[in-house]
Amino acid sequence: MSTTTSPQRIGLFGFGVVGQGLFDVLHRTPGLQTEITRICVKNRSKSRPIPASHFTYERNDILDDPNIDVVVELIDDADAAFEIVSKALRVGKSVVTANKRLVATRLRELLDIQMETGSSLLYEASTCGSIPIIRNLEEYYDNDMLSRVEGIVNGTTNYILTALHEPASTGYASALAQAQVLGFAESDPTLDVEAFDAAFKTTIIAAHAFGVVVNPTQIVRRGITTITPFDVSIAQQQSRTIKLLSRVQLHGNGLSLLALPALSQNASPLAGIRNEVNAVRLTAAFSDAQLLVGKGAGGGPTASAVLSDIAALRYGYRYEYKKLNQASRPVVGHNVETVVYVRGTNEQITSIPFSVIDVDHRSSRGRYVIGHVQLDALHKSAAFQDPETFIAIVPED
Amino acid sequence: MSTTTSPQRIGLFGFGVVGQGLFDVLHRTPGLQTEITRICVKNRSKSRPIPASHFTYERNDILDDPNIDVVVELIDDADAAFEIVSKALRVGKSVVTANKRLVATRLRELLDIQMETGSSLLYEASTCGSIPIIRNLEEYYDNDMLSRVEGIVNGTTNYILTALHEPASTGYASALAQAQVLGFAESDPTLDVEAFDAAFKTTIIAAHAFGVVVNPTQIVRRGITTITPFDVSIAQQQSRTIKLLSRVQLHGNGLSLLALPALSQNASPLAGIRNEVNAVRLTAAFSDAQLLVGKGAGGGPTASAVLSDIAALRYGYRYEYKKLNQASRPVVGHNVETVVYVRGTNEQITSIPFSVIDVDHRSSRGRYVIGHVQLDALHKSAAFQDPETFIAIVPED
Repeated sequence: MSTTTSPQRIGLFGFGVVGQGLFDVLHRTPGLQTEITRICVKNRSKSRPIPASHFTYERNDILDDPNIDVVVELIDDADAAFEIVSKALRVGKSVVTANKRLVATRLRELLDIQMETGSSLLYEASTCGSIPIIRNLEEYYDNDMLSRVEGIVNGTTNYILTALHEPASTGYASALAQAQVLGFAESDPTLDVEAFDAAFKTTIIAAHAFGVVVNPTQIVRRGITTITPFDVSIAQQQSRTIKLLSRVQLHGNGLSLLALPALSQNASPLAGIRNEVNAVRLTAAFSDAQLLVGKGAGGGPTASAVLSDIAALRYGYRYEYKKLNQASRPVVGHNVETVVYVRGTNEQITSIPFSVIDVDHRSSRGRYVIGHVQLDALHKSAAFQDPETFIAIVPED
Repeated sequence: MSTTTSPQRIGLFGFGVVGQGLFDVLHRTPGLQTEITRICVKNRSKSRPIPASHFTYERNDILDDPNIDVVVELIDDADAAFEIVSKALRVGKSVVTANKRLVATRLRELLDIQMETGSSLLYEASTCGSIPIIRNLEEYYDNDMLSRVEGIVNGTTNYILTALHEPASTGYASALAQAQVLGFAESDPTLDVEAFDAAFKTTIIAAHAFGVVVNPTQIVRRGITTITPFDVSIAQQQSRTIKLLSRVQLHGNGLSLLALPALSQNASPLAGIRNEVNAVRLTAAFSDAQLLVGKGAGGGPTASAVLSDIAALRYGYRYEYKKLNQASRPVVGHNVETVVYVRGTNEQITSIPFSVIDVDHRSSRGRYVIGHVQLDALHKSAAFQDPETFIAIVPED
C-alpha cells in the first residue's frame, strides 16, 4: 500500500446533517489534506449555510470531473444513489457511502461493479454508525472461527424500547411520539420500527462476516409495533429486557439471519445497551465474545465513519470480501430450533407449530406461550403476519 | 495484497496454555491451512500432552529451517524472546508474539528491524487479549481525529478491584489470595498489581494511537496494593468505582500517558467492566466514544488473537505505523492539571502541590483530599513513592 501525498478531492452528493458535519470537519482540519470540491444537491430553493458557489444541481458536474477522486454519497434515494455510485465506480472514482438500503438491496450488483472496475466502494457508515464493524469483520475476523454476529443495530427502536422499560412508561405510541419529538425517530418511522433498517444492516453484516450475499427479504424480520406493557412486564419478571436483535448465526453449514424482537437476559451485555446506542457482539470459537459499542447514527458518528473511509482511501484501501471467495460458504436456512415468546389470541398462538411448550400463560391480562419452534415454521405461521401478535425470540445467553 | 494458497508452516516457541490452545485449534481446523512444524521448549523433563517428536530444545532448529514461514513467540523471558524475534525477522520470517513486555520495552529496536528487513511483526495478543485494539488503531483510527484512548487493560487487577467492591469484601490481601487460587493472579503478582503490565500495554497503545514511542518508565504508573476498604467506601459514596486505568490523552500538542487507579463514575462505561474483562474506550473528535469489550487474557482469547495475526500474514499484512511517520507528532508531557484523590498521612498529602482542593476530609477512619494538581508534580511528590498512600485520578467522565 502506498500513501498518496497529494490532496484528495471529493465530490459530495447530499448536504444534510452528515454532509454538513463532514464539510465542517474537513474545513476545520486542513491537515487531512482533503477538500470538498463540489456538492451536488437536489433542492434549488433551500437556503444553505455556505455560499452557492459550492453547489451544483447536475450530478455529472461531479461524475465527469476528472479532478475529483472520491465520491461521497449521502442522499436518501437508494435508486438515484445506485446510479450515482455505479457510474462513479465505472469512471474510476472511489466511493464512500452511508446508504444502508443501497448497499443491502444492490450488494450483488455493487460487488460485480467493484470486481469489473477495480474501484473501491467503502460503506462503514452504513452499519452501526461509528462502530467499525465492517472493517473488523473484513480485516480481523477473517479466519474461519466466527460463529455468530448479533447486535443492536437500530438506534430508533432501542430508544423506544428503553423508554418502554421505564416505570413511568405509558406504552408504545407515546414512546414513539417522544422519540419523534427528540429527533430519534422520523415522522414516518416504518423503516426503523418494522425492522427494515435492521434487516439492511443484517444483510451487510452477513456478507462481511460469512461471505453470504442475501436479499434483505430473506431475513426473518419483524418489528416492535405490537409490543404492549404486558409484554414488557413479562420480560421484566423473567429478568429480561426486550431488544430488537439483529443476528447472523452459523448452525453447522447453515446460516440463519434474523431481525426480531428478543427477550435478552439482563445479564447479557446487549440488555444493558440503552437509548440510541448500538452494539455488536461477535462470538468466535476459542475466544469469548467481543462487544463493540458506540453511537449508531446521527451526524457526528456517521460523519466520523465516512471520514475514516475517506482516510483509508488515501492508502488504496478496498474491501477484499475474502469470505465470498472461500471454498465452503454456509447456506442460508432457517430450519433451526428457536425458543420464542408469543403473545396473542388463541387462534394466532395455535398457528405456530411448537415442538415443546415451556410456559402457557392465560390470565385476564392476556395469553402468551414460550416454546420451541423451527424458525422457518414460525416465519410461515399466520401469527407472524398478524398485526396484533407480539413475537420475540428468547436467547439462551 | 495477494492471498497465499500454500500452507503456512509455523515454528512455535513456548508450549504453555496459549501455545497448547493454538496447537489444538490448528490441529482441529485443517481448513486454516496452517500447521505447526516444530515447537521449541526449554524444559526437557516436563511431561507434555503430545508426542516428543514435535519438540526441539534448540532454537535454531526453527530459526534456520527455511521451510518455516512464521515464528510464533509465546515464551515468558523478554530478553530471550527479543533474540528469537529479531533473528527470525532478520532471516525473513514473519513473527507473531503475545509478549507485551518484549514489545513495550524493545519497541524502537523492533521498529528498526522491521524497517530494515521488511519482515512483518504482529502482536495483537500483547494488548487486551482478544480485543482487536492494535488492528483498529492501525487501520481504522488512522485519521487525525483521535484524542484519547483509555481502558481497563489488566484483568488481574480488575478482578481484584471488582471483589473489593462487593459488600462481603474483607480487603486487598484476601481479594488477591482469592484471585491467586482461581488462577486470575500469579504467585508473584507484582507485574500486575503494581501496574507494570498496564504500563506495557499503555506504551503499545501510544505507538499505534498517536505515533509516539516511549519507554514504559515514562508512563505515570502506580499500582493498587495500597487500597483500603476506606478508599472503596469513599468511592462508592460518590457513585464511583475504583478501577486501574490506562490512559493516553492528547492535550493540544502534548500527550500524557498514565497507568493509575481511578475513581470512575458509575455511569461511565468503564465502571461497569467487571472481573477479568478488559475494555478500551476511544474518544475521537466529531464522534462519540467507542467502547471495545472482551476477555483480556487467558488461553482462549490470547490464542484467538494470535490466530487472527497468523491469518493476516497469509495476505501479507504488516503494521504500517502510519502515525509514526506523520509530520507533527505529539510530545510526551505530563504538565497537565488532573483531579486526584489522595488518602494518606498529613505529611504525605502535604507533599503534593495542589492548586485547588475540593474536599479535605479528616475523620477517625483517615484523611483524604480531592484536589487539582499538575500530573508531573504529583508524579514527583513524596506521596507518589510512599508505600502506604493511595492515589487515584478522578476522571470527569
